[in-house]
Amino acid sequence: MANTGAFMTYPQGSDPIVNADRLLTDLRTLRSIGAQGSGVVRPAFSAKDMEARRWLAQRFSDAGLEATIDGVGNVFGRSRRPGKALLIGSHSDTQPTGGWLDGALGVIYALEVVRALSDNATTAHLAVDAISFQDEESRFLGCLGSRSLVGSLLPEQEAGVTDRDGIALADALAGAGLAAKPRLRADPARYIGFLEAHIEQGPHLEDDGKRIGVVTTIVGLRNLKIVFRGQQNHAGTTMMARRRDAAAALFELASAVNREFPQVAAARSVWTMGRVQVTPNAASIVPGYAELDLQFRDADDAVLDRLDAVAERLVREANARGGVTIEIQRTRAPIAPTRMDEGLRRHIAAAAERHAPGQWVEMPSGAFHDAGIVSARLPAAMLFIPSIGGISHDFAEDSRREDIELGCRVLADAAASILGAR
Amino acid sequence: MANTGAFMTYPQGSDPIVNADRLLTDLRTLRSIGAQGSGVVRPAFSAKDMEARRWLAQRFSDAGLEATIDGVGNVFGRSRRPGKALLIGSHSDTQPTGGWLDGALGVIYALEVVRALSDNATTAHLAVDAISFQDEESRFLGCLGSRSLVGSLLPEQEAGVTDRDGIALADALAGAGLAAKPRLRADPARYIGFLEAHIEQGPHLEDDGKRIGVVTTIVGLRNLKIVFRGQQNHAGTTMMARRRDAAAALFELASAVNREFPQVAAARSVWTMGRVQVTPNAASIVPGYAELDLQFRDADDAVLDRLDAVAERLVREANARGGVTIEIQRTRAPIAPTRMDEGLRRHIAAAAERHAPGQWVEMPSGAFHDAGIVSARLPAAMLFIPSIGGISHDFAEDSRREDIELGCRVLADAAASILGAR
Repeated sequence: MANTGAFMTYPQGSDPIVNADRLLTDLRTLRSIGAQGSGVVRPAFSAKDMEARRWLAQRFSDAGLEATIDGVGNVFGRSRRPGKALLIGSHSDTQPTGGWLDGALGVIYALEVVRALSDNATTAHLAVDAISFQDEESRFLGCLGSRSLVGSLLPEQEAGVTDRDGIALADALAGAGLAAKPRLRADPARYIGFLEAHIEQGPHLEDDGKRIGVVTTIVGLRNLKIVFRGQQNHAGTTMMARRRDAAAALFELASAVNREFPQVAAARSVWTMGRVQVTPNAASIVPGYAELDLQFRDADDAVLDRLDAVAERLVREANARGGVTIEIQRTRAPIAPTRMDEGLRRHIAAAAERHAPGQWVEMPSGAFHDAGIVSARLPAAMLFIPSIGGISHDFAEDSRREDIELGCRVLADAAASILGAR
Repeated sequence: MANTGAFMTYPQGSDPIVNADRLLTDLRTLRSIGAQGSGVVRPAFSAKDMEARRWLAQRFSDAGLEATIDGVGNVFGRSRRPGKALLIGSHSDTQPTGGWLDGALGVIYALEVVRALSDNATTAHLAVDAISFQDEESRFLGCLGSRSLVGSLLPEQEAGVTDRDGIALADALAGAGLAAKPRLRADPARYIGFLEAHIEQGPHLEDDGKRIGVVTTIVGLRNLKIVFRGQQNHAGTTMMARRRDAAAALFELASAVNREFPQVAAARSVWTMGRVQVTPNAASIVPGYAELDLQFRDADDAVLDRLDAVAERLVREANARGGVTIEIQRTRAPIAPTRMDEGLRRHIAAAAERHAPGQWVEMPSGAFHDAGIVSARLPAAMLFIPSIGGISHDFAEDSRREDIELGCRVLADAAASILGAR
């Protein structure tokens, strides 16, 4: 959480020229595509999402990039400048009921950084590619676009995938006219690295009075699906002693998790049991089957191991008491904590100190991001700006205008610095 | 639970002549309408339900009754014999995935009792009306048919009612061709009383080695909908101390109910939390809203009061701890425990002792039945036969053939006795 000590020094006159009005105008135009009240509804491959992607491709093209929408819906703008390039971007798809900045901010920042570098003679030769990844928000498959771009998307991950309404990914791709289009693959030889800017989606920056977060680590995540198998029965005629009530077992295990996890958690560990399914889910029927998702996150794999061990022990103890049979299913691959590239981070920190001295901080990211996928193949780093009230994934999501502008200046400056302008 | 002491004595030769083959043939024919594997799918107003009702009306007519299907779908067979009548029946609609005997048994028993009395010269003059009530199983409104028949169905209870798929009751009535048909109303002056035979739907008779249950009381039931209002948030970025997690509050309250209810419950009290709704129900989102149904049943209103007070106290204590706001909503009217008519019960008990000496028992009904509705307007009583393994509301529901036959003999004998044949 401490600032890094060593900063580079900058010559005068080499600043990229961020145009705040242009930045805000583009952010607001993107917001208008799928706007609902103060929020945005633009889930991956929806009509509004594809409309936004076509608009982005045009804006990338207007900024001098060679723009394409690839076979998974990534909008990619390739710089025409020679030499090593920096990839910058985020995603423009939203949650089913999303905010206007989540993802969109980082995409429009990328566009503005391209223009800001072009507008200054001392940086106009630098190669920045811009990208909007597809389906970061997991309508079908979380980080689909970044996985595809870096080559970590396996055919078996895609096979048979549907959204919550049962629509197949393959049909969504075909419906969006993408089925026959080639999928782009990033060439690691082309890139110095990847930068992603994002709203924090949490309250830390605001609480601490900071304006820029330099991400150290994207926290790791494990998701256990816990299955309870009992005996469905009539709620009037089945005596308590005879019941094998799957929901009662679920309530007890979930309470035990909330009682015991704090004893082994770290200060920033979080755990959530946000999905419950009870079958048949009727007031007058003793449930015979239930499911519970237990998700936990921390920046330290050792802490995740400790939490995992407690969950395993609690399930073992409940099974020993008998009645309902409980099983942990590890259907989702765990995500290991991901360190951001230290070299890239130093450039972001230096730019933050220059534009907002003392008002930036190093911090982990509690949310997952495309940068976590890209970092497996390219050096990657992230920058956060504050979320008002820490609110995200909600129509009320917002950031202060001056923070939105500052974030882009820091990012443009860091990009120029990384590309060797100074 | 003890047998009653005093029995009537019977003259010889006055037995109604139950035809076991005819009874079983009709039960199996009814089973075939909507059969799925060993189960039956015949929810109220479905095509199969209405087909079964038309078939039943024909069988009632064949048995000499004046048969009609009324404006809520009740199949009513009116005796052409003069004098006071006994009403006998149950319901022929099923659960979404129901068993073959629940309801159907009592309807075909009524048909067979009518025929059995007609077949014996000494009982042929007795008036028995047969009925199959509609929607006992609450597709739209539990005990719709019996409520309508006894005049306790209020227009405001029907208004706007839909099934789980959002189909309106009014549309279902119109779709079944019933909208313009008159609704029958039972004239209390016509009836000595109402008898309903049913499978036990529980394990008591089987466990105790008994073959007939004479129902003393239909247990009372209260259903509290408990609503939890917290704050929806991102599961990665919202620290534990800051959360107002509606599901976590639900798990804790449900566990407390299961810990504390046994301290004030009676031996046969049951309580069930069979319906849970978490919003938005996603693994990565801290739930902002949740609902839990807490249903409890006992034959004694004072016990229900004690359980109710514990639920109220636990909610009060949880609200005092703050964070999530919890509210109890009493959206469903409570059902008071209903005593069965002692005069009618004595006749059933006597018939049971005659056909199965020492093998019958007095017992409460843990499940609700149409007899609970009818008893508010007419003397009413019930008879149970054993359920194999106590299983009901399930394709596996079954009873032994000899118990099915015995139950009908006891019912026919009791009917003759009630109507003054002996």
